[in-house]
Amino acid sequence: MLDEREIVELIASRSGKLPAGYLPIGDDVAMIPPGRPGERVVLKCDMLVARTDVPPGMTWRMAARKAVAMCVSDFAAKGVRPSSFMVSIGLPRGTPKGRIVGLAAGLAEASKEWGVRLVGGDTGEADDLVVDCSMAGFARRVVRRSGAKPEEYVVTTGPFGQTAAGLRILLQGATASQEFRARAISSLYMPSPKLEAGLALSRFLSSSMDSSDGLAISLHTISEMSGIGIKVTGLPLADRLEEFAAANSVAEEELALYGGEEYEVVGTIPKDRLGVAQRVARSLGCELRIVGETTRAFKGVLFSDGRKVRKDGWVHFRSGP
Amino acid sequence: MLDEREIVELIASRSGKLPAGYLPIGDDVAMIPPGRPGERVVLKCDMLVARTDVPPGMTWRMAARKAVAMCVSDFAAKGVRPSSFMVSIGLPRGTPKGRIVGLAAGLAEASKEWGVRLVGGDTGEADDLVVDCSMAGFARRVVRRSGAKPEEYVVTTGPFGQTAAGLRILLQGATASQEFRARAISSLYMPSPKLEAGLALSRFLSSSMDSSDGLAISLHTISEMSGIGIKVTGLPLADRLEEFAAANSVAEEELALYGGEEYEVVGTIPKDRLGVAQRVARSLGCELRIVGETTRAFKGVLFSDGRKVRKDGWVHFRSGP
Repeated sequence: MLDEREIVELIASRSGKLPAGYLPIGDDVAMIPPGRPGERVVLKCDMLVARTDVPPGMTWRMAARKAVAMCVSDFAAKGVRPSSFMVSIGLPRGTPKGRIVGLAAGLAEASKEWGVRLVGGDTGEADDLVVDCSMAGFARRVVRRSGAKPEEYVVTTGPFGQTAAGLRILLQGATASQEFRARAISSLYMPSPKLEAGLALSRFLSSSMDSSDGLAISLHTISEMSGIGIKVTGLPLADRLEEFAAANSVAEEELALYGGEEYEVVGTIPKDRLGVAQRVARSLGCELRIVGETTRAFKGVLFSDGRKVRKDGWVHFRSGP
Repeated sequence: MLDEREIVELIASRSGKLPAGYLPIGDDVAMIPPGRPGERVVLKCDMLVARTDVPPGMTWRMAARKAVAMCVSDFAAKGVRPSSFMVSIGLPRGTPKGRIVGLAAGLAEASKEWGVRLVGGDTGEADDLVVDCSMAGFARRVVRRSGAKPEEYVVTTGPFGQTAAGLRILLQGATASQEFRARAISSLYMPSPKLEAGLALSRFLSSSMDSSDGLAISLHTISEMSGIGIKVTGLPLADRLEEFAAANSVAEEELALYGGEEYEVVGTIPKDRLGVAQRVARSLGCELRIVGETTRAFKGVLFSDGRKVRKDGWVHFRSGP
């Protein structure tokens, strides 16, 4: 096994040299250039733990990329471009070098994919793989969870249910067509937060939130924090989800609302801004879909027929890399 | 057991309300006011894992405080006042509420002690308690590990060996006077990074580093990164360490150099600045001690008699909270 210093050197060497304004990796702290005048510092940490966040078959490369994706998704939902990130990595004693090379590759891949620099970190021993990503960026303001007004549309950047289906395929042997299976598993292994769409949409949204704990939790959180009700008028289902749901005797609604692991933006938008926002999203390869409408007529989250949307979400899944 | 939201609310409620310029805890990201013009952002993450960082008898309150202390110590060594921190917390399933109350109390205590605000975080399930602290501050420059010149003094803010003695008392049943035992164990349970001294001394130091991996590792790292040799002329031993060492048949040198867990600043200083730096340190209740001298006569770290200081440091200790 590599020692702590060798691990840091390996990871730093894969991530490329930092330009002027940054402190090179390997000192007690990291240092990054400031934002523009008037911009505040935006920070986020998100911890990936293998036993709950890494489904069977996911490599350490994918796990490292996912740890970064989890933070990028939060920045996307707030409309803030991330600048830099650090990682604290906990490794089981005796972790073979190949896995650490995989981790380093996943971090470098994430760094390139979302244009965010790896500037520092920490490694230590843990019972299980732990990758805690902490990310920094700059903004004058962010779109908050609490800004929704009545009579707005509730929108999202992506379809739901595919990741929950993927988990059922991996953990419970659910059946699926080859095409659906590949797509569902890929959505779990390689989550794709919509960073560019999130940045472009932020000027239209009155509230927003990352959906990784599930669509139902996101809707309930925006509803509670904004003090408005949400009427769900239609669920943005992943392609061919109905077919999968029917074949496996599960309601597609269950998969789309309560699964989690979708790294989409869920938000609210004044009705007269929807058209332009949809065009902007489409120009970035992203379909902005309507989930429902906000209202002051009731609190909470209801379907059009009056049934309650449960405040249920992501359930830990046990697995190992 | 509390759910994720209840945990976040409990911790946030103990840490006090954030003033204007900060985003309240509970959104997707944290947001903090910027530094002064020209200041860069200084970042650090440090992960505490119970099995390796929490010795027997340490409460969760102490563990949470220690997780913050680990980062504060790095900021102290760089001469940067920390502004804010986030915590990612991994908890075993079924953790009783009392322990989470302890964690929240430890974070609030650390926040007050070092004047650093808790601005956000993440919680999830893990096999073992994990507290990853990520901290932010602002500075134009930091004292680097690589800045030592030949013919300088090597200095440190504190005595060494007491924490290693404490570990031997806790883990191996080493014998000690009641006074020494209390002091040694307290130094492990309640580490005290010298933040104010580190800030004040930074203008005198040519290089510096946090000593938490042990004095020997710190000396070797400064030596390598600065490209100079270090001659160790005297070890700053904790009070009555000789007595403890003799009673337990261990060399005091072993305890002072290779133990780790001391949260002191180790650095280098031009000889003509020593006097004023010592007076400044003393005015802050801290004794600046000479460990040795830098030289271009050789590479590496040697005692005056030519023996090598091994590049050995902190050894993981297994335990549970």
